[in-house]
Amino acid sequence: MTRTQITLVQIDNYGPWTVTPEPRREVDLQTLQSRLYADLCQQIGREGGYVFFARFDNMIAVTNGLDWADHELIQESIANRYPVSVSMGIGTGTTPQEALAEATGVLQTAGSAQDGTRTEILGGDVLDEDERAAKGVQVAHFDVIDVTGTYTDRVDAFETFIAIEQGYAALMRYMYGQHDSLSFFVGGDNVIAVCPDLPASAYEDAIVHVSGEVGVDLQVGVGRGASAHDAGMAAKHALEECRHNGTRVERALPADD
Amino acid sequence: MTRTQITLVQIDNYGPWTVTPEPRREVDLQTLQSRLYADLCQQIGREGGYVFFARFDNMIAVTNGLDWADHELIQESIANRYPVSVSMGIGTGTTPQEALAEATGVLQTAGSAQDGTRTEILGGDVLDEDERAAKGVQVAHFDVIDVTGTYTDRVDAFETFIAIEQGYAALMRYMYGQHDSLSFFVGGDNVIAVCPDLPASAYEDAIVHVSGEVGVDLQVGVGRGASAHDAGMAAKHALEECRHNGTRVERALPADD
Amino acid sequence: MTRTQITLVQIDNYGPWTVTPEPRREVDLQTLQSRLYADLCQQIGREGGYVFFARFDNMIAVTNGLDWADHELIQESIANRYPVSVSMGIGTGTTPQEALAEATGVLQTAGSAQDGTRTEILGGDVLDEDERAAKGVQVAHFDVIDVTGTYTDRVDAFETFIAIEQGYAALMRYMYGQHDSLSFFVGGDNVIAVCPDLPASAYEDAIVHVSGEVGVDLQVGVGRGASAHDAGMAAKHALEECRHNGTRVERALPADD
Amino acid sequence: MTRTQITLVQIDNYGPWTVTPEPRREVDLQTLQSRLYADLCQQIGREGGYVFFARFDNMIAVTNGLDWADHELIQESIANRYPVSVSMGIGTGTTPQEALAEATGVLQTAGSAQDGTRTEILGGDVLDEDERAAKGVQVAHFDVIDVTGTYTDRVDAFETFIAIEQGYAALMRYMYGQHDSLSFFVGGDNVIAVCPDLPASAYEDAIVHVSGEVGVDLQVGVGRGASAHDAGMAAKHALEECRHNGTRVERALPADD
Ligand SMILES: Nc1nc2c(ncn2[C@@H]2O[C@H](COP(=O)(O)OP(=O)(O)OP(=O)(O)O)[C@@H](O)[C@H]2O)c(=O)[nH]1
Ligand SMILES: Nc1nc2c(ncn2[C@@H]2O[C@H](COP(=O)(O)OP(=O)(O)OP(=O)(O)O)[C@@H](O)[C@H]2O)c(=O)[nH]1
Ligand SMILES: Nc1nc2c(ncn2[C@@H]2O[C@H](COP(=O)(O)OP(=O)(O)OP(=O)(O)O)[C@@H](O)[C@H]2O)c(=O)[nH]1
Ligand SMILES: Nc1nc2c(ncn2[C@@H]2O[C@H](COP(=O)(O)OP(=O)(O)OP(=O)(O)O)[C@@H](O)[C@H]2O)c(=O)[nH]1
Ligand SMILES: [Ca+2]
Ligand SMILES: [Ca+2]
Ligand SMILES: [Ca+2]
Ligand SMILES: [Ca+2]
Repeated sequence: MTRTQITLVQIDNYGPWTVTPEPRREVDLQTLQSRLYADLCQQIGREGGYVFFARFDNMIAVTNGLDWADHELIQESIANRYPVSVSMGIGTGTTPQEALAEATGVLQTAGSAQDGTRTEILGGDVLDEDERAAKGVQVAHFDVIDVTGTYTDRVDAFETFIAIEQGYAALMRYMYGQHDSLSFFVGGDNVIAVCPDLPASAYEDAIVHVSGEVGVDLQVGVGRGASAHDAGMAAKHALEECRHNGTRVERALPADD
Repeated sequence: MTRTQITLVQIDNYGPWTVTPEPRREVDLQTLQSRLYADLCQQIGREGGYVFFARFDNMIAVTNGLDWADHELIQESIANRYPVSVSMGIGTGTTPQEALAEATGVLQTAGSAQDGTRTEILGGDVLDEDERAAKGVQVAHFDVIDVTGTYTDRVDAFETFIAIEQGYAALMRYMYGQHDSLSFFVGGDNVIAVCPDLPASAYEDAIVHVSGEVGVDLQVGVGRGASAHDAGMAAKHALEECRHNGTRVERALPADD
Repeated sequence: MTRTQITLVQIDNYGPWTVTPEPRREVDLQTLQSRLYADLCQQIGREGGYVFFARFDNMIAVTNGLDWADHELIQESIANRYPVSVSMGIGTGTTPQEALAEATGVLQTAGSAQDGTRTEILGGDVLDEDERAAKGVQVAHFDVIDVTGTYTDRVDAFETFIAIEQGYAALMRYMYGQHDSLSFFVGGDNVIAVCPDLPASAYEDAIVHVSGEVGVDLQVGVGRGASAHDAGMAAKHALEECRHNGTRVERALPADD
Repeated sequence: MTRTQITLVQIDNYGPWTVTPEPRREVDLQTLQSRLYADLCQQIGREGGYVFFARFDNMIAVTNGLDWADHELIQESIANRYPVSVSMGIGTGTTPQEALAEATGVLQTAGSAQDGTRTEILGGDVLDEDERAAKGVQVAHFDVIDVTGTYTDRVDAFETFIAIEQGYAALMRYMYGQHDSLSFFVGGDNVIAVCPDLPASAYEDAIVHVSGEVGVDLQVGVGRGASAHDAGMAAKHALEECRHNGTRVERALPADD
């Protein structure tokens, strides 16, 4: 059984800040956002978590290995080094969707994302030790089959990008609607999905759906682990199996699954 | 008249590198990619250019202010500081699509994106001084109307993200197919499009199209300038006009347009 | 009683790399070095450790809270994101000098710092759980009294810098020679020293010595803790006491000291 | 003839900020400082300038290639991305010392480094085009002979560090006092000095002086150029000549010197 802990990281009152007193240089905003994301990757990654940039002003993290103190430390460290601060809502659930809904609720209850007096919120509940040990996370690593030969080396760079983007848009909606899963584009032709316990058939259906809707052919490796990192690494190895065996879905799950 | 110079920045042989000798830690890849992007933002931004992360392994830049030596310097600096190197193809055109197609062709002609011996390519043509001075770039800054009240503060963070993402997927395809424009998600609820000379009606149509297809309501500010930065700043100010006037499309163009 | 664990972090074969195939741009080397240091600060800092830039190519860290796996993770992460790799020697001792000598020996035994085949060494011994819990670290935070009024606002910026630098040079040599302590300049007018159990008189002597040798007047806060961070924070609070009380030495030590 | 333009970059009201409301985590301060320095290296380096970390809160840059607008852009970009802002004083002179004294005066006249209302000062004078073209900068790159064999591989890492540090302390004071030059430690065993027109004998004397005072043996390459980068690169190549020829001083100066 999975039990996912999700943290929603929201930059405080960011919209108004970007245009006060006047619109700020876009390259500086991009630099700020991507470095903040990079720092969170390292900080959350050290405890086995994953964070996804999503909207950049609202980032979504799988934080099964992180307790309350870890969250506090990250929040303080960001405030010490950036011109903006962040709020964090934490939620848990048997599905990632459920966990994120809870995490979102924490922040919404505290006030608006653009309320200048609602800053550095930290709320919600982390998994207790027992749950964390007993349960885990399921991660699926999707990737376009031969993106290089089919697109990158053949059509112009934006056409390739459109194909990948439409594939992602179809996949994210399907996995959320059908399977309470959260899927994130992570660069290249890769999408990482955080899922509940799903059978192989669910992934096969998703691949068929995307191929039918937008004509993009995917393969996927699926892994399970105590942390996002463990599950994600197993998924990456499973994806290498797809490449090796020419298969569409490979799973690297613990023996008892 | 616009004349856009586009640079395609491609990480050399990156796919194989990510799995050699074994799949690398995802958080490290994410950190690498987003910091590389942040550095390019600063380097290209210093000369008035914009760069978009797009696929991260293939980034697309508007480089009207950058000459050949600027490109060389950036390429050398990346190689000095990262474990990967980049190739760059440069193209120009009356539309961004045309310029990118040319830039893509430069790299494709030199070899495959996953050819380990094809590294640090720099090719194509930059605008000459006269063209650069006489012509310019058109930038449109799209944004969801009241994303905070409609989505962020009301539904869960992934539902908000789906809405933004579907809006972006619809917009990017429409602007590329109808108007040879390149549109990029830049975080939050913002999309920046690099366009040829387009009339206000083109932007109105795009907004109507996205609203009809996925139900997301956009506003847009449009600017023109010698560089992406100048055009983009004008676009941001125009977008503030939308907010102020409650209009959907505002343009801040030079007097003779 | 203190028991300090020190890690010597050495960039592998860095001298030859900086001039191969030709001397590299100095600003890129500076960027590489200072970002590598910043990353180590965050990574080691997450577990309560401190790292000092020292020579930059040889950084010295107080790693009481870090076990073997923590070191492995940092080493792997650096290699994934930088064009250079690092070796790490770990040592422990009742004095920091003793611990560092051991850590240095680990790397020297493995080969030369400029041996191209000696890369990513990880060796030495970490404290076991019991020792770590029972003992701790002593940290002293030295600072120039009123550097702003005496120097920064009055003489030219290099004269100020010379005063601080000569103060540091005198202090570091004295603390090492007399007290087996490792002192590092950390910016501004601040020097952080990692010390064994030292009485208040030792710090008073050091201050008198520096004042006599180079005419720079110091104050110092001293702290103790399970980790460098805990000890360092206590030292900072003690330094605030100096400022408040107008004293030269303040110690914030556990009750039984 | 040389004419050096120096910019003093001072973090505004930084001392009070580091302890408000309470002392901040040292690793965060270190990260902030070193990343700010890294960014300045890239920004100033793009126009051929050099910046040295010096005290970190007061950094010293050689900015011959940078005009007023370049300074403004850097100042704005820092404020957009950091929790602190910077002030900049610019000075020029036939010697670096003279230029820095002028630059320092600009900031001192505007108020105290710890005056919370004195922020984002930009003042002083940049070289005009003609002067910049006609004159240039002289840079000397000093380095310890065989630091690896003599120290790094033989004695403990702090003893090596002491030797380098004492060498630097002696050199910086001598070059400033005798030759109005500004010398900065740049990591490893390297010191870069920004000098006026100096003959080879001045460098020989400096090397003899350091060897006599602290027993550290140096070699030095000297270069001249329109920018710090050009001069510094010439100096690095000259230093390689020292290594190749076994000489102590090599100069790579334009033909008419
Ligand atoms: N985030 C992330 N991106 C990856 C990873 N592996 C590959 N990529 C990206 O995916 C892009 C394409 O690489 P591949 O998937 O190996 O190339 P391909 O041509 O599709 O080949 P096959 O997938 O083997 O059919 C690369 O340029 C990277 O950007 C990974 O582990 N994580
Ligand atoms: N990249 C970028 N993002 C921005 C900019 N301005 C705002 N954003 C992002 O957009 C998000 C939403 O901010 P707003 O668009 O101001 O909020 P809103 O609720 O939609 O309000 P209105 O647009 O005024 O209707 C912010 O959190 C930022 O992430 C900008 O100039 N550039
Ligand atoms: N690394 C580090 N540097 C600090 C810290 N606090 C202050 N500084 C630096 O020290 C410089 C001088 O600040 P202060 O020591 O507060 O100023 P001062 O004029 O000497 O005043 P007093 O020390 O109160 O006499 C600042 O610009 C910072 O660079 C700290 O906790 N850590
Ligand atoms: N900042 C900077 N540091 C350098 C440069 N070249 C070398 N270093 C540093 O100097 C250290 C020692 O390298 P070398 O000077 O090549 O080694 P060495 O043993 O002294 O050998 P020789 O100088 O050839 O006698 C390296 O680890 C680097 O940290 C450079 O161009 N810039
Ligand atoms: Ca693929
Ligand atoms: Ca909006
Ligand atoms: Ca002080
Ligand atoms: Ca040397």
